[in-house]
Amino acid sequence: MKLYSYWRSSCSWRVRIALNLKGLAYSYEAVHLVQDGGRQNTEAYRALNPMRTVPTLEFEEGGLVRRLSQSLAIMEYLEERYRTPPLLPSEPLPRARARMLAEMVNSGIQPLQNLSVLQFVKGELKADDKLFGAHWNTRGLTALESAVKETAGTYCLGDQVSIADICLIPQLYAARRFAVDLTPFPTLTRIEAACSQLPAFQAAHPDRQPDAVPA
Amino acid sequence: MKLYSYWRSSCSWRVRIALNLKGLAYSYEAVHLVQDGGRQNTEAYRALNPMRTVPTLEFEEGGLVRRLSQSLAIMEYLEERYRTPPLLPSEPLPRARARMLAEMVNSGIQPLQNLSVLQFVKGELKADDKLFGAHWNTRGLTALESAVKETAGTYCLGDQVSIADICLIPQLYAARRFAVDLTPFPTLTRIEAACSQLPAFQAAHPDRQPDAVPA
Repeated sequence: MKLYSYWRSSCSWRVRIALNLKGLAYSYEAVHLVQDGGRQNTEAYRALNPMRTVPTLEFEEGGLVRRLSQSLAIMEYLEERYRTPPLLPSEPLPRARARMLAEMVNSGIQPLQNLSVLQFVKGELKADDKLFGAHWNTRGLTALESAVKETAGTYCLGDQVSIADICLIPQLYAARRFAVDLTPFPTLTRIEAACSQLPAFQAAHPDRQPDAVPA
Repeated sequence: MKLYSYWRSSCSWRVRIALNLKGLAYSYEAVHLVQDGGRQNTEAYRALNPMRTVPTLEFEEGGLVRRLSQSLAIMEYLEERYRTPPLLPSEPLPRARARMLAEMVNSGIQPLQNLSVLQFVKGELKADDKLFGAHWNTRGLTALESAVKETAGTYCLGDQVSIADICLIPQLYAARRFAVDLTPFPTLTRIEAACSQLPAFQAAHPDRQPDAVPA
């Protein structure tokens, strides 16, 4: 498998965690989201992923090269193909809660503060992109703290790592980049501390990717 | 089951279609997103859904009242609980493609043009909310047209209705409200015409909801 990724892309980071948790080897293909106007905007990359996003997962199936984008769709695919260890609980209702928490990040926070949106806010709207990004992080994490508290154990859903944790960790990193105060979210930061002990999360961290830029 | 919904909310609309396709009866609880500063912002509603979004699905399970938000999480739950008719293909790769297409709308377009975001763009950034909404619809639908073409039959994935169609139809309605030119998306509008023949889609249309406001 090959993962088109960018070190700081939170959606790429999610898939890196999932691949690591499942013990799946992959090659890393860096797509620089800033250089040369963003390499995701090249014709070559758009042919792989018309949405011009990372990640894209490439693999062979039935003798053909297949490509998937959208981190949650990729993780659900990995979950169906490689059952162990599971990234979702086994029962429908906890599964739904895991997906709900993941979506609160995936559709409720991340899209509003990704690079292309911030560039549009600053470049086209001539408005404060930092304010915009911070606002949606704060608003979404406030809701997430409240929702996670209902089911949290060591992780978002009891003591089993799930896609909810996988979405949470990169989002907290992003929130810090917008200087969001995380002290109102003690449940979320406690879970982050627990996840940061796990090798699969450690190896997926932006700083450990081949295209990382030292601070 | 009770669905907290708003007639024009595209995410509520998705769940209405899914419930209709599955033949599941539900009661409709209108949450007016504009009146009185938005009824989703009341303490009472935030206790049900801290993200202050619609839809929320409420139901009993194990003798307790349960609530789920996030339309894709809700649809996956319905899919696991009520298998027939399926909203996803049966094989992992087509399932992943259905989820990918659905996410291109769910995380790639809809969040950037929902009401709370437009209100922030206009009210806080003092910028052009219509331009903002139109931009992300055009950009996302351009990518979606390209992706859907690879698998389209009568619907987004061959001849079986899936969550991809369920996400597509409300998004095209939203795009028209932003006066987006849909002529570059012939595959998407052809699928829309096919879906509009189905009673489950017809009954879920905003104009047929109890809280609809006549034009």
